[in-house]
Amino acid sequence: MNTQFIYEDLRKIREQKPLVHNITNFVGMNNTANALLAIGASPVMSHAKEEVEDMASIASALVLNIGTLSPEWVHSMKLAGEVCKGRTPIVLDPVGVGATAYRTRVAKEIIEACRPSVIRGNASEINALYDNTNQTKGVDSTIETSNVVDAAKQLSKLTGAVIVISGPVDYIVDNGRVASIFNGNKMMPFVTAMGCTATALMGAFLAVDEDVFNAAISCMAVMGITGERAVAKSVGPGSLQVNFLDELYNLDEEKINSHLKYEYKTY
Amino acid sequence: MNTQFIYEDLRKIREQKPLVHNITNFVGMNNTANALLAIGASPVMSHAKEEVEDMASIASALVLNIGTLSPEWVHSMKLAGEVCKGRTPIVLDPVGVGATAYRTRVAKEIIEACRPSVIRGNASEINALYDNTNQTKGVDSTIETSNVVDAAKQLSKLTGAVIVISGPVDYIVDNGRVASIFNGNKMMPFVTAMGCTATALMGAFLAVDEDVFNAAISCMAVMGITGERAVAKSVGPGSLQVNFLDELYNLDEEKINSHLKYEYKTY
Amino acid sequence: MNTQFIYEDLRKIREQKPLVHNITNFVGMNNTANALLAIGASPVMSHAKEEVEDMASIASALVLNIGTLSPEWVHSMKLAGEVCKGRTPIVLDPVGVGATAYRTRVAKEIIEACRPSVIRGNASEINALYDNTNQTKGVDSTIETSNVVDAAKQLSKLTGAVIVISGPVDYIVDNGRVASIFNGNKMMPFVTAMGCTATALMGAFLAVDEDVFNAAISCMAVMGITGERAVAKSVGPGSLQVNFLDELYNLDEEKINSHLKYEYKTY
Repeated sequence: MNTQFIYEDLRKIREQKPLVHNITNFVGMNNTANALLAIGASPVMSHAKEEVEDMASIASALVLNIGTLSPEWVHSMKLAGEVCKGRTPIVLDPVGVGATAYRTRVAKEIIEACRPSVIRGNASEINALYDNTNQTKGVDSTIETSNVVDAAKQLSKLTGAVIVISGPVDYIVDNGRVASIFNGNKMMPFVTAMGCTATALMGAFLAVDEDVFNAAISCMAVMGITGERAVAKSVGPGSLQVNFLDELYNLDEEKINSHLKYEYKTY
Repeated sequence: MNTQFIYEDLRKIREQKPLVHNITNFVGMNNTANALLAIGASPVMSHAKEEVEDMASIASALVLNIGTLSPEWVHSMKLAGEVCKGRTPIVLDPVGVGATAYRTRVAKEIIEACRPSVIRGNASEINALYDNTNQTKGVDSTIETSNVVDAAKQLSKLTGAVIVISGPVDYIVDNGRVASIFNGNKMMPFVTAMGCTATALMGAFLAVDEDVFNAAISCMAVMGITGERAVAKSVGPGSLQVNFLDELYNLDEEKINSHLKYEYKTY
Repeated sequence: MNTQFIYEDLRKIREQKPLVHNITNFVGMNNTANALLAIGASPVMSHAKEEVEDMASIASALVLNIGTLSPEWVHSMKLAGEVCKGRTPIVLDPVGVGATAYRTRVAKEIIEACRPSVIRGNASEINALYDNTNQTKGVDSTIETSNVVDAAKQLSKLTGAVIVISGPVDYIVDNGRVASIFNGNKMMPFVTAMGCTATALMGAFLAVDEDVFNAAISCMAVMGITGERAVAKSVGPGSLQVNFLDELYNLDEEKINSHLKYEYKTY
């Protein structure tokens, strides 16, 4: 598979500066706004039911993240999702699904109501969306990503979404294809909202690439390569957070091509 | 114009450590609290209707920022604003005004109800407050600052506030005067909440300088010089955010005087 | 007193990765999540009344912080607290108590309803919980920590909690003992949410050490030593924030033992 589209997507984000509307959690808002700015997109965070439909209607992508959900925010997610459905790409981050019954129920409702193009989570979260057992410890994963690829295949068939499992290896799964990204570093989970950052950047990639599967690959490749390069300059998660944004801002075609570790299969 | 007052204002902030009450957005709260601490002020964030009047009554300045507004928070902004009106200086940041009808309406209501001393926004926002056309793309500006100076003059006449337009050149406008600050760097908009930071620091400057026009000049000069010095040490927006706080903490009279690029006109 | 338990507690956190449930303020959420990750714990932030009881029931510690309180969040704090009371350790951060009547009332209600194992605040806050006079300026302390040790002794007797006063010297007080930690640096209060970070880390220490007094000593020693080591590499509060997380991630037994400045008395 030719992976030239990865840099091409990045270039388009910097050129088009797509407006990405985020209804997301309180912990990661600052990180995700900064990551979207660093990659060249234009983030907006807005959740009031009085305006989410207006904001969603001018956005090029919608990011829904249930990390610190409440009924009012979920209501706004659905309002914005209805505006975007079938028109503007939506990405859902089912943070902590499986940890409480409420989260699991809400995530399923949003999938049903909004039909996201991409669902991105860690292995526990993706698994919990598919089989109803509770295996999420708070918001951190307790199972191996490779064990969830089959669940992701089924979930993709059921929902029509491209499923992304983040972890030591990232898997991008649709109905028939599995792409694997081997970039990244084990220090990354020591920075909060790294998963939320991947989801927010996914919004930017979806805004510039109509091929959802490719956009998802581009996003996870950029995350992994950026993280890997940032870790190489860092002594801990504090400096990693800083270097991540610097590396994302300075990422170029040569860096992508020399770092990318990628595999692709059909099934 | 003698610009000695800029350092004098900074010195007073460090000496008096004014309590600055912020009712602001979720994205920039951490940045603005850190910026207020780094400059020597004492920030407090508080929004519950049960206490905003008590908090506002002990504060030396009130910062209102509608970045992630909702009806409950707007209600609290008005309650706090009523307490401060005519007594304690208020600065309003009309984030994203023009992007949705709700934001535009709320910003105008707050101006009417609270009579802020300063309104600070980007060019799109200031323009949208004056002429009702929608030209804001999310929270980022799409028009040149210099094209909005006339709108700012009119807005200042209408509202009695000093109007600050942030951008490549910052304009401070009142009914008869325009000051321009040429400091800053084009990397600054790649860090989220830089505008919110300017607005929060404005609270600190208003708390120590009764001359609102001068306080606004001081604030924007300090923002621009700090940003410029921070960018010189940064390789991207991650390190810029860190260096910005370090430079703000270490800013002194010599640095201000050697960096300041300033122009002043009456009209 | 043998202080070997300090490193032992840290080691257990890294080994057990306890799930720490936080219902906290908007300003410090990101910092406290990052600090909990850097030390090796697993943070979750969750506040919806629809799920806080479920989340609290799977957590190893509960952190309640009223920094940006509202009635809905306070309600959720009580719901989660009821689940944990007498079963899972709770730490309360009474941010800004004394600044408004509402905060003081709420903090007392939470103490009554949830019976926290530890109450951690600055001198003004701890004092305000004990004697009803208003001496808090926003969220920053205006009185010396040493003057509040007697109030802390009384408060510990009244509430059954270990009381921690943060400041230039940190005091850990229970009904009969006072431990003092002389680590830390005066640049630390220039970073927002440092107090909230101490409280959040307290959750992790309480999760692994059933001896509440020792857990509180461990936490404040780790905070002080980490802060001191971070300041040594920092030029201002921006770099301090980064270096703090890096140092916390890399803290080891030798660093603890060579830095610890500690005193212990019974009364």
